[in-house]
Amino acid sequence: MITAASPELVDKLVLANRIIYDQGVVDGMGHVSVRHNALPNAFLLSANRAPGLVRRADIVAYDLDGQALVADAPRPYLERFIHAEIYRARPDVNAVVHSHSPNVIPFSITRTPLKPVFHMAGFLGSGAGFFEIREAAGDTDMLIREPYLGQALARSLGGHTCVLMRGHGSTVVGSSLEQAVYRAVYMESNAKIQLQANGLGEIEFLNEREARLAADCNDTQLQRPWFLWVSKLGELDLDS
Amino acid sequence: MITAASPELVDKLVLANRIIYDQGVVDGMGHVSVRHNALPNAFLLSANRAPGLVRRADIVAYDLDGQALVADAPRPYLERFIHAEIYRARPDVNAVVHSHSPNVIPFSITRTPLKPVFHMAGFLGSGAGFFEIREAAGDTDMLIREPYLGQALARSLGGHTCVLMRGHGSTVVGSSLEQAVYRAVYMESNAKIQLQANGLGEIEFLNEREARLAADCNDTQLQRPWFLWVSKLGELDLDS
Amino acid sequence: MITAASPELVDKLVLANRIIYDQGVVDGMGHVSVRHNALPNAFLLSANRAPGLVRRADIVAYDLDGQALVADAPRPYLERFIHAEIYRARPDVNAVVHSHSPNVIPFSITRTPLKPVFHMAGFLGSGAGFFEIREAAGDTDMLIREPYLGQALARSLGGHTCVLMRGHGSTVVGSSLEQAVYRAVYMESNAKIQLQANGLGEIEFLNEREARLAADCNDTQLQRPWFLWVSKLGELDLDS
Amino acid sequence: MITAASPELVDKLVLANRIIYDQGVVDGMGHVSVRHNALPNAFLLSANRAPGLVRRADIVAYDLDGQALVADAPRPYLERFIHAEIYRARPDVNAVVHSHSPNVIPFSITRTPLKPVFHMAGFLGSGAGFFEIREAAGDTDMLIREPYLGQALARSLGGHTCVLMRGHGSTVVGSSLEQAVYRAVYMESNAKIQLQANGLGEIEFLNEREARLAADCNDTQLQRPWFLWVSKLGELDLDS
Repeated sequence: MITAASPELVDKLVLANRIIYDQGVVDGMGHVSVRHNALPNAFLLSANRAPGLVRRADIVAYDLDGQALVADAPRPYLERFIHAEIYRARPDVNAVVHSHSPNVIPFSITRTPLKPVFHMAGFLGSGAGFFEIREAAGDTDMLIREPYLGQALARSLGGHTCVLMRGHGSTVVGSSLEQAVYRAVYMESNAKIQLQANGLGEIEFLNEREARLAADCNDTQLQRPWFLWVSKLGELDLDS
Repeated sequence: MITAASPELVDKLVLANRIIYDQGVVDGMGHVSVRHNALPNAFLLSANRAPGLVRRADIVAYDLDGQALVADAPRPYLERFIHAEIYRARPDVNAVVHSHSPNVIPFSITRTPLKPVFHMAGFLGSGAGFFEIREAAGDTDMLIREPYLGQALARSLGGHTCVLMRGHGSTVVGSSLEQAVYRAVYMESNAKIQLQANGLGEIEFLNEREARLAADCNDTQLQRPWFLWVSKLGELDLDS
Repeated sequence: MITAASPELVDKLVLANRIIYDQGVVDGMGHVSVRHNALPNAFLLSANRAPGLVRRADIVAYDLDGQALVADAPRPYLERFIHAEIYRARPDVNAVVHSHSPNVIPFSITRTPLKPVFHMAGFLGSGAGFFEIREAAGDTDMLIREPYLGQALARSLGGHTCVLMRGHGSTVVGSSLEQAVYRAVYMESNAKIQLQANGLGEIEFLNEREARLAADCNDTQLQRPWFLWVSKLGELDLDS
Repeated sequence: MITAASPELVDKLVLANRIIYDQGVVDGMGHVSVRHNALPNAFLLSANRAPGLVRRADIVAYDLDGQALVADAPRPYLERFIHAEIYRARPDVNAVVHSHSPNVIPFSITRTPLKPVFHMAGFLGSGAGFFEIREAAGDTDMLIREPYLGQALARSLGGHTCVLMRGHGSTVVGSSLEQAVYRAVYMESNAKIQLQANGLGEIEFLNEREARLAADCNDTQLQRPWFLWVSKLGELDLDS
């Protein structure tokens, strides 16, 4: 018998889906997952549905090969291997957000380094990984639709908090849903500010020590924005 | 007796009108049409009304000369010839969106090629057509208000998925309403990202094969954003 | 006895106030007026109140010296002389919008000509007037708070449809409230597009003949966006 | 016994919190304070909570060492020393807003002077202070989490109306909540306009005398936007 995920974790994952839509990180595409609370080699992810519309019943548990743990699971996202292979490669990671958030993409297609312009994005201090799918697979439809592509992406992520995906978008990780969602929101904010500053003059970024110290501090404040973002969703019915 | 359009198609066209307004593709101007389900040489288009306010009763069937099929039709859009002549020239096209979506216009007035920066816009891989109305008609009010102008526009569209119209806006086509609306939304997104990336450095675009493969894949996912966009409209009364 | 303004005109002016706020032309500042229907040397303008909150009871009739026609009028806007002196200088003008709409200001402070990038802004074809308050009055608080400043502004407006005010904002005129509001909305849209296109390459603007023809045509379509903008205001109580 | 703050002032501070969120000055982070009406060496500030969610019960009185006046106060903001030390250094200041408003940050990280592009931002005429935390403390987490950092920030503020904080955000002051909130909103607006104008050409800023005269005038108009911003909050329950 398969151990069921905790109802609290399922609810939090539904909230995370709605938040990343409400905060403009994703539109109809993109996804967020969390590692299974009882099965370290499994994770929870919605079936094929826009994140802003995800309900409890859409949450499916997958193994690290991207196979649903139950036989009659609904149609999955094509790119569930992003999540599967990152959970396999990174035991410290418990949550993953994949998006096409628009201000980050210019960095992925010009290879301009995305670096922390303010303390809120201290988690960018170690730099972002960079993934060029052509190196792994030549010309493709750009999607991480096979395990070997997920493995290549996980290698590009390395020990970073995020990876830019050329011609596609980005993926961020965290030790919790709150942290991964926070990073997804502020990676987009940082990118927008960096784009604007780029035209003004030479940018003084946080140095690595500032970035690390800021990131450590922000991790003690994650509940404040999370609570705001949940409140902003208004009256909630997680079942519809 | 004229064959009536299917009520389902009329409803979908009303939804498409509301979506392109809600998603910021059009403001008070612009329009979306669909080829008649029973009469291949006719198409459905709203009468002269802002897309965000279009109701079932506003939908009129026109022939490919832009003439309403019924005698007492309400005041039409001046530019219905955009639709008429594209349906005549392109049997593969079943839906057309014409808009002034703001991030696309800079490309039309500087002749900078609009190219796919991410897989969501793979349909741009064959490039956009370019229409200079001066070549067809000298100095005009810029509108496609006559059949010969629609024919010139259709020639500039050629076999592409979209055409940039200098000093005016753009027109995108699709094999279905879902596909044409998807393309209108993501042409605007792609343009915004390309504008931002332009100031950062040299852009690595999707190559033609990547774009084609991505476009083919996206076509299998059209229901996900469409369902989101309909849901976002909230409580719906298609009659008022 | 003073001839009362028509209730229909008062209502339309209240709507115009709410629209220019809802459409992002004004924030808490800025104003819109209309020439009095029965007294050509008078105009209607709200008392000192944010346009988005203007009610029927806030509308005051002023003469062309900026004096209220009734003795007990509420506190006026400091800059009512913008309106008064333009109505005096331009018998063809029946409505005036003054705003700080944000995308227009960069043109006023860099003296970059604002020119029509698309047919919707054909009314810019004759160019915008340019007003430098230092030439009229040296160092000031930038406000048109005296009749002689309004006269200087009206001279800079000349026969144009709008005038850029350095370090301040802009003023647009029309033969009707619908036309002036339309122009205020699309001057801002045009400015935003022109700003974006500026970084891409050399811009092909509408030439003067295209602009004039487009403007003439748009004037036949004013009811479509006006009706949309009113509808967007939702449930309306013009008294509160 | 501690003198209680006036209920009217507490309510106004709750409104100020909600306004700076609604107007986009802050997201989940940032804060606004007001000097205590009865105790000049104390100030009112919310406990650790997103400004958009602050309620009457969250308001805490602190002394100028950043210590809560009551023993059982809820968890405070880490950066209350921003407020404490500015109130100590500037007897003329009665309200402080600290934010990461996004368009201001590019100026803080490129050392490009933020200067008044329009009369609404005349308060920028004396220039903004500039704070580099490295000069005070070397590599840090960027936060003003100790009194000596607050003192260094207050020295960088000097007699200005605002101070840019490298890699962090900005802080603005006022003689009243209305004035500080006004300045926070229009500092962001000015920054956005200046960023856009920067790419167009050389900018003609307000000169110092224009800026001072404009600022003096704006101070007579503060109630108009404040009333709009409160109205925009809709139905209000200051207790939840």
